[in-house]
Amino acid sequence: MNLDAVLAKIDDNMPGATDRLLGLLRLPSISTDPAYKADCDAAADWLVTELQDLGIDASKRTTSGHPMVVGHTGDSGPHILFYGHYDVQPVDPIELWDHDPFDPVVEETASGRVIRGRGTADDKGQFMTFIEACRAWKEVHGSLPGRITFLFEGEEECSSPSLVPFLQDNAKELHADFALICDTAMHDTQTPAIVTMLRGLLGEGLEISGPDKDLHSGYFGGAAINPIRVLADIIAGLHDDQGRITIPGFYDGVPDMPPALLAQWDALDFDPATFLGDVGLSEPAGETGRSVLEMMWARPTCDVNGIWGGYTGDGFKTVLPAQASAKISFRLVGTQDPLKIRAAFREQVRAQLPPDCSVTFSDHGASAASQMSTANPAFEKARNALSDEWPKPAAYIGCGGSIPIAGHFRDILGMDSLLIGFGQADDQLHSPNEKYNFDSFHKGTRSWARILQALNA
Amino acid sequence: MNLDAVLAKIDDNMPGATDRLLGLLRLPSISTDPAYKADCDAAADWLVTELQDLGIDASKRTTSGHPMVVGHTGDSGPHILFYGHYDVQPVDPIELWDHDPFDPVVEETASGRVIRGRGTADDKGQFMTFIEACRAWKEVHGSLPGRITFLFEGEEECSSPSLVPFLQDNAKELHADFALICDTAMHDTQTPAIVTMLRGLLGEGLEISGPDKDLHSGYFGGAAINPIRVLADIIAGLHDDQGRITIPGFYDGVPDMPPALLAQWDALDFDPATFLGDVGLSEPAGETGRSVLEMMWARPTCDVNGIWGGYTGDGFKTVLPAQASAKISFRLVGTQDPLKIRAAFREQVRAQLPPDCSVTFSDHGASAASQMSTANPAFEKARNALSDEWPKPAAYIGCGGSIPIAGHFRDILGMDSLLIGFGQADDQLHSPNEKYNFDSFHKGTRSWARILQALNA
Repeated sequence: MNLDAVLAKIDDNMPGATDRLLGLLRLPSISTDPAYKADCDAAADWLVTELQDLGIDASKRTTSGHPMVVGHTGDSGPHILFYGHYDVQPVDPIELWDHDPFDPVVEETASGRVIRGRGTADDKGQFMTFIEACRAWKEVHGSLPGRITFLFEGEEECSSPSLVPFLQDNAKELHADFALICDTAMHDTQTPAIVTMLRGLLGEGLEISGPDKDLHSGYFGGAAINPIRVLADIIAGLHDDQGRITIPGFYDGVPDMPPALLAQWDALDFDPATFLGDVGLSEPAGETGRSVLEMMWARPTCDVNGIWGGYTGDGFKTVLPAQASAKISFRLVGTQDPLKIRAAFREQVRAQLPPDCSVTFSDHGASAASQMSTANPAFEKARNALSDEWPKPAAYIGCGGSIPIAGHFRDILGMDSLLIGFGQADDQLHSPNEKYNFDSFHKGTRSWARILQALNA
Repeated sequence: MNLDAVLAKIDDNMPGATDRLLGLLRLPSISTDPAYKADCDAAADWLVTELQDLGIDASKRTTSGHPMVVGHTGDSGPHILFYGHYDVQPVDPIELWDHDPFDPVVEETASGRVIRGRGTADDKGQFMTFIEACRAWKEVHGSLPGRITFLFEGEEECSSPSLVPFLQDNAKELHADFALICDTAMHDTQTPAIVTMLRGLLGEGLEISGPDKDLHSGYFGGAAINPIRVLADIIAGLHDDQGRITIPGFYDGVPDMPPALLAQWDALDFDPATFLGDVGLSEPAGETGRSVLEMMWARPTCDVNGIWGGYTGDGFKTVLPAQASAKISFRLVGTQDPLKIRAAFREQVRAQLPPDCSVTFSDHGASAASQMSTANPAFEKARNALSDEWPKPAAYIGCGGSIPIAGHFRDILGMDSLLIGFGQADDQLHSPNEKYNFDSFHKGTRSWARILQALNA
């Protein structure tokens, strides 16, 4: 197999590849908001057409939520499942975007060329690196190497409600030797990475109710309970003064990292001051006595992602609101049990409710942390292929984010997963002005060609 | 002067009086929201026309905010200033209204006939009782008794920014022997009341900033400070476990009530269980060891009126927000100094900020509490006139709300104020489905005729 010809074809294809990516980015496939249902469907159709154009047997598969896209090619050789997600995060606060988030642009910046728009880095730009690698491979060789199954979902940003049933119902069709998941970042712009530790995620909504209607704070203030104050007390009580989470049993299953692994992380090119300084901060805000990488890769968290109650418009309104609400998520590590933590969290909230208050919880998904075994030889093959493309050797790293798909592939399909992506820390995932480095897109595509070569050698 | 003829005329006029009130209620004069500026102006015009129709020399007077309406009639005898406000509160949460708040209706309910819509009780229905009493008086006698100056403002629900300068600039024109202010409630449906104690109000907005952009809680969670958590800690720290406010010096100037006054309040027909039960509560939530009436009339409070930050839409978004905000108000009593309390509050918030966080405050007005002297004989004349109209004798009571106008009349115009209104505790002021009892409207109008007679006897 002629790798150099494929790499040259990738270089030649970049203008067309960029146009194809921009086309996909223009589809506002925000999965969490029902208003964008048709746009999610359009993104799935776009992918089916794109895969069919490469000679892949691809189709859109109905679920109770947004559709899956599945494709198959090849009938012998190593069997890979490639996974990506075509849905994106909401865009608010929209006023902080410099452009329309769904009118993507290629920009020259001080640190190089970038593609800017919602979904560039999470995850459309990322998974298109693999599709473009396949396109170049096919143009050079006439067909793709080995056997490849493609799986794209459209609910990754809203807790993937359809994923587990779909994997269960189609386990035989989707089983492969191992999975490639493209939804993670490099260690830095020079150092590619394979993520071997992922945090789990537990999402909870809660609404505290007090009086049965909004009240005038002049008449009732001092006598009536205020749900906002109750909610603030509950949130304030979730951490102690060392930054540890107070829920009973929360740290059950949280492992201490082996000293050798911590030493490897310490040796990585990572400056906490620069990392935090890039987002306007100077001090790590997590548990006392832990390094920043440890806080993000190996420690569990409790984050308030949203809060609202009472009057939030212009001016002022002296109301005592009937309700106050929050969205709270937990990042989990090791063998922490999401369902036990959900139950303990709810019990702690209920125990803190004063008289006359009630709480309603809503379930926004739960997934345990994943720890990959690197025993499968595919890990070393991929790591060496990545090291050939980039200035520095590839590293095995942790990731603070939650990509529960790796756990599902292990539990339901019995496969290991290689998490390989080309994002950067400053991509502004889930934030205004999300971008993907043009280098990530170009060298990421070249990386996949090298990995396909190595896996099929 | 033939009082019976005026009372009979009021009874005859009720259908027309109701229609006139409904017309005024249809104008959405929400003063705090700039989108309703033209509607505030239309309400002022409506009032000018209404007063002119009664032969009153009335005009709309420009301010830097919403206009004042001023009218004069008479040239000898006791000189009264009558005050009301034509602006209303916002209507959110709009989904909890059973009708369009600005399409008012007259409804028969289990507890009698009511007029329902935004502004019925606060304050349009209230001040129209005085105007309708004047109309009947004029229809019977051909002119109004004594001298009456009318003053209506359109910024009472947004801290009255134009009021003090307007009173200062027009002090000579507006000075009278004493003021009648119609913006308070009766003690209960049987017992009219004159309010002699009013709480002050201090309004503050605060925005806590942390990271310089919204962050992904997967990548940054555990390492980056979360402004929602910082805000929750600040709010949770504003009260101690006895329900007392923790701001240093906050209780300076808070008087203990004389035992005789507390005994008078204890003797009133007031059942805390019923009062709280009417809004879905069972226990007073204020300071340990104080009665409900004391909590509402004689004790200061700190209330969170609104809170927001992060993702508050449908679904879930794992964001660490750059900002979190709240609106907080303080009800003040005795000689508490609003400006000293503002400074101490801001100092306490700043002292609690962790590294990398900053705060921006906004000033939403400040007014001290008012305590009336009942030495002016007008108090006893009005109390007796009210007692003649209603089943039970009128009482001197406190009021938890803040009507800073009484303090301004005292300080700027050197006048006492009689706070007489016909609202009820269940009027749902500032809440969805605000209403005004038809009895309040009808017998309130009759009450003013009796008071005008008594004051001019």
